[in-house]
Amino acid sequence: MQPRYLKQAEAIKLDEELFNYFGVEQLMELAGLSCASAIAEEYPESKNVLVVVGPGNNGGDGLVCARHLKMFGYFPEIFYPKRPAKVLYQNLTKQCELFEIPFLSSFPAQEELNTKYSLIVDALFGFSFKPPIRQEFCEIINTMVQTSTPCCSIDIPSGWDVENGPLDPMNQIKPAMLISLSAPKLCASFFQGIHYLGGRFIAPALATKYELNLPNYPSTQNCVRL
Amino acid sequence: MQPRYLKQAEAIKLDEELFNYFGVEQLMELAGLSCASAIAEEYPESKNVLVVVGPGNNGGDGLVCARHLKMFGYFPEIFYPKRPAKVLYQNLTKQCELFEIPFLSSFPAQEELNTKYSLIVDALFGFSFKPPIRQEFCEIINTMVQTSTPCCSIDIPSGWDVENGPLDPMNQIKPAMLISLSAPKLCASFFQGIHYLGGRFIAPALATKYELNLPNYPSTQNCVRL
Repeated sequence: MQPRYLKQAEAIKLDEELFNYFGVEQLMELAGLSCASAIAEEYPESKNVLVVVGPGNNGGDGLVCARHLKMFGYFPEIFYPKRPAKVLYQNLTKQCELFEIPFLSSFPAQEELNTKYSLIVDALFGFSFKPPIRQEFCEIINTMVQTSTPCCSIDIPSGWDVENGPLDPMNQIKPAMLISLSAPKLCASFFQGIHYLGGRFIAPALATKYELNLPNYPSTQNCVRL
Repeated sequence: MQPRYLKQAEAIKLDEELFNYFGVEQLMELAGLSCASAIAEEYPESKNVLVVVGPGNNGGDGLVCARHLKMFGYFPEIFYPKRPAKVLYQNLTKQCELFEIPFLSSFPAQEELNTKYSLIVDALFGFSFKPPIRQEFCEIINTMVQTSTPCCSIDIPSGWDVENGPLDPMNQIKPAMLISLSAPKLCASFFQGIHYLGGRFIAPALATKYELNLPNYPSTQNCVRL
């Protein structure tokens, strides 16, 4: 069964509806955990991971993902340049520090990015992203565009339009892996690579209401390859 | 490596310390998920599950466990006689309702308990329990003591003293399975049966500080058989 790809407004509405029932901490924990599980399935040997964390909920998923990767035996490092003064993100940061995950003070130069890390997790922007990319993130994304290290994007390849995909074909992230959360967004139709679905918390009634056509997750797994 | 079994005061202190870093929703989600995973591993065919939910955090773990069991293809039903007016528990209840899990209005009689259910999940009392059992729960526990349906206790077999185990040998729950959360408590040394550890969220520094001697969780798994 092929899941339906959501428009941006649908993704936002589904998310709002989920928050009628769930706490953000809860959903973020399950979402980030499923990202770490999917990465462990596809990249079992790529232990040196750089997690690039944005200022919103996509970044929160990235912080949770980093913590679980650490528990799974990976060596994640985090670059988190813009940290909102919200308790949610402050706690997620404290948790990563408790698990002794290093936070970088500057983004690695191209050469370092290519050689030191075996995988980049792109948790910069999620399904509420609207272009243009703010100046402070342009340089980071430019470096990520040019790196030879494979990239795994959480929910949306950062800088892509949520519906129309890559806007500037010369200057776009081309992730090797995409982990859609809850349900894929329209831009995923422009993605060619390893595609996973994570975020196993959609009740049947919501799946029906939003015509999600979700695949069955195998047994107790929290992610599934599409 | 054999984990150390904690005294009640140590378990309470460890829990308090965890809450310096984590939200209760977060830890409860991971704890309840690990219970559901352990049950799916040991009882893959026992799909008709009664989850008996107490008024505190142990009950919260049970509600999360029930929701994940439902997602794993089980048919849980919930008995939740005493529901505190806390948003946390109200939300966990709403989530179970959203997943169409039936809530029973009365506790099943012995015959029904023996025949209708293939497994009982005991999520009544946790590591902060102090005897005696309140009157309203005595009848429930008496029925659970006498049932032929196997029982899986979350963290503490309900009614057992957290350190000294079964106080009244004639009238005690004898679970077939025990899922210790974070670390086993002292009463687990009186338990003979299938023993799992769940709640994979203890940072190395805390494990060292409390001398937990935790076993390694395999790969991405959230529970481990001891």
